[in-house]
Amino acid sequence: MTGVLARPVVPAARYGERIERARTLLAGKDAAALLLGVGADLQYLTGYTTVLTERLTMLILTQSGAPSLVAPRLEAMAAAESPAAAGGFVEVAPWGETEDAYELVGRRFAALLDRVADDARILVNADLWAMHVLRLQHQLPGRTLGLATEALREERMAKDADEVALLRLAAQAADRALLGVAAGPLIGRTEAEVSREIRDRLVDEGHDQAQFAIVASGPNSASPHHHPSDRRIGAGEPIVLDIGGTYGGYCSDTTRTIWVAGPDRGIAPNPEFIEIYELVQKAAATATAAVRPGVTCGDLDAAARGVITAGGFGSEFIHRVGHGIGLETHEEPYLVAGNAEPLREGVAFSIEPGIYVADRHGVRIEDIVVCGPNGPDVLNEALRELLVISG
Amino acid sequence: MTGVLARPVVPAARYGERIERARTLLAGKDAAALLLGVGADLQYLTGYTTVLTERLTMLILTQSGAPSLVAPRLEAMAAAESPAAAGGFVEVAPWGETEDAYELVGRRFAALLDRVADDARILVNADLWAMHVLRLQHQLPGRTLGLATEALREERMAKDADEVALLRLAAQAADRALLGVAAGPLIGRTEAEVSREIRDRLVDEGHDQAQFAIVASGPNSASPHHHPSDRRIGAGEPIVLDIGGTYGGYCSDTTRTIWVAGPDRGIAPNPEFIEIYELVQKAAATATAAVRPGVTCGDLDAAARGVITAGGFGSEFIHRVGHGIGLETHEEPYLVAGNAEPLREGVAFSIEPGIYVADRHGVRIEDIVVCGPNGPDVLNEALRELLVISG
Repeated sequence: MTGVLARPVVPAARYGERIERARTLLAGKDAAALLLGVGADLQYLTGYTTVLTERLTMLILTQSGAPSLVAPRLEAMAAAESPAAAGGFVEVAPWGETEDAYELVGRRFAALLDRVADDARILVNADLWAMHVLRLQHQLPGRTLGLATEALREERMAKDADEVALLRLAAQAADRALLGVAAGPLIGRTEAEVSREIRDRLVDEGHDQAQFAIVASGPNSASPHHHPSDRRIGAGEPIVLDIGGTYGGYCSDTTRTIWVAGPDRGIAPNPEFIEIYELVQKAAATATAAVRPGVTCGDLDAAARGVITAGGFGSEFIHRVGHGIGLETHEEPYLVAGNAEPLREGVAFSIEPGIYVADRHGVRIEDIVVCGPNGPDVLNEALRELLVISG
Repeated sequence: MTGVLARPVVPAARYGERIERARTLLAGKDAAALLLGVGADLQYLTGYTTVLTERLTMLILTQSGAPSLVAPRLEAMAAAESPAAAGGFVEVAPWGETEDAYELVGRRFAALLDRVADDARILVNADLWAMHVLRLQHQLPGRTLGLATEALREERMAKDADEVALLRLAAQAADRALLGVAAGPLIGRTEAEVSREIRDRLVDEGHDQAQFAIVASGPNSASPHHHPSDRRIGAGEPIVLDIGGTYGGYCSDTTRTIWVAGPDRGIAPNPEFIEIYELVQKAAATATAAVRPGVTCGDLDAAARGVITAGGFGSEFIHRVGHGIGLETHEEPYLVAGNAEPLREGVAFSIEPGIYVADRHGVRIEDIVVCGPNGPDVLNEALRELLVISG
């Protein structure tokens, strides 16, 4: 017995199930094949991750026939250890440094085609690099490329119990990292220094790796994607902390805005800051409360936006209310005005309204929420009340 | 006066020069425009970096007319602070969450065209995501896409003095991180734990961020891109350490192979390991000594491969001898058999021969080298002799 809880893992057999399911989805999308380079789609179907470089790695999955995982020879050993290859669901096809990987993909693809119309499309991962896309278009003339998202989005959006468990552990680890850094000291340190502390804490709390750690202090808090700078944190100002990483492959993404009040908490938040904080807090709570199957993504954006607009800051809420999350920090669905996609049970996403008053201050609060059968399952546990710290 | 040396930075005016130079290069490539998303090409021309997401960021640069930097509204403030925007060389054009960014790019692009043939190509960054590539192809029908690498490769390959200075600082910081971790303790720790220590040390030594830290121990050393695992390091085995990150935006990438001999250095390296170590060491030295302007990339691969093949391990040297390095860890030129590209002064690249005996052991030694006017300028200073440590 140890004090460390075993981390859930996606069982190897599930990759075989996902691959079979993906085959059947191809037919419904009038697509001949999935051609997936390094990225979340490949990870979802095979469990394989590797460094993203100019060397082509590519899963070739057609409606029938044995799937191939084309990999650079120097990574063939690593590819063979992936759950899907080790489980016998895909065969690794290595290519040497002086071989043409695209020609190999074309040859393997052609050999796998069986009762598929010549004009059926080929679906590639949305984040496949242009250098690969243009070469594949050249290698497979007459074929139209589309995005694998079309075929895999429904499967990837609705998380199973193992995936939700990992997302919850990720969220709670991020909560602990946030609270740890909020405990200070903060005053006199640069945003970049605090950002690095957050990255360290994310790993200390169980993340595989930190991916981002926005520290936006004072007027920088009005820039939603501020890059942590050499600005020193002072007393009497807010800090937006927006942090995330991967935990067992699944992403965390949490934001809290705190107020640094100085010694003896001497400098209280100014009235406008309190006003916008409370509006954002209410907007987040309103959108979260609206979560249930059938509600649309656009409805959730509208729920938050309605609160902020009624409060007079509609034009300072300059981004959508949230995004799906899973193997990627941002994935489908996107909670943006006009998106009529209804939520289904198991869909995981951020709810993160914000108000940004240029040159003055900004507030954002972000939680990860899963759509439960009857309402929201909020994965983060960190307090949403304004934390006023001495700093 | 402090003990900390100021880090060189690329002066803002240089981005203006690079943009003007890029315009003239377009004509020579029969190209109407560069359309550059987030990545090293954008960073090279504007100094702008941001998180890489599904939201489109895109520099539109044509042969004449004012360049635009299309950016999501929530990142408009960050984009405006980039050296090129702050210096007045590009204008930031924000798009809101419910607007069509591709339509905005198409409109801005059309408005900029001036005396450019209708069939002139459009060049995009090699790592632009497929989701953007397919939308741009749809938005700009009849236009052929090519890679911006064509236009920018010569400029990006030959580093100027500021760039070489940053690459040298990066290499030396990586050297210190490597030597620090080699000092131990290592025995009994997992590869993943040591990998994390390396990442921390890279940042401690001045890197902006760590990018990778391969720790391949015992038989795992035979897998060049081994993913650090829960395997515990033991006495009487080698470890391949291949580490890198960015330092002032420029990349480090260094490999050393060490032998963990246990208490009192009791377990000496076995004869085959010594044989392959010495072959790799000689191959690296031979290739490095051959560096000078006019020598081809393929010549350098051949120089290293000749040594290893003569030693009987040619088929265990399963990758090219090196790759260009700069704003990207892997960039042009690639030092691979058959590449007839001649070196020019200022070109920076890795020299990293390796031998991998499956299920037994592997060796790789990697330095970053700049082609000087009369020979190699080796940026790394860490010892290349076999380091036998107690561990």
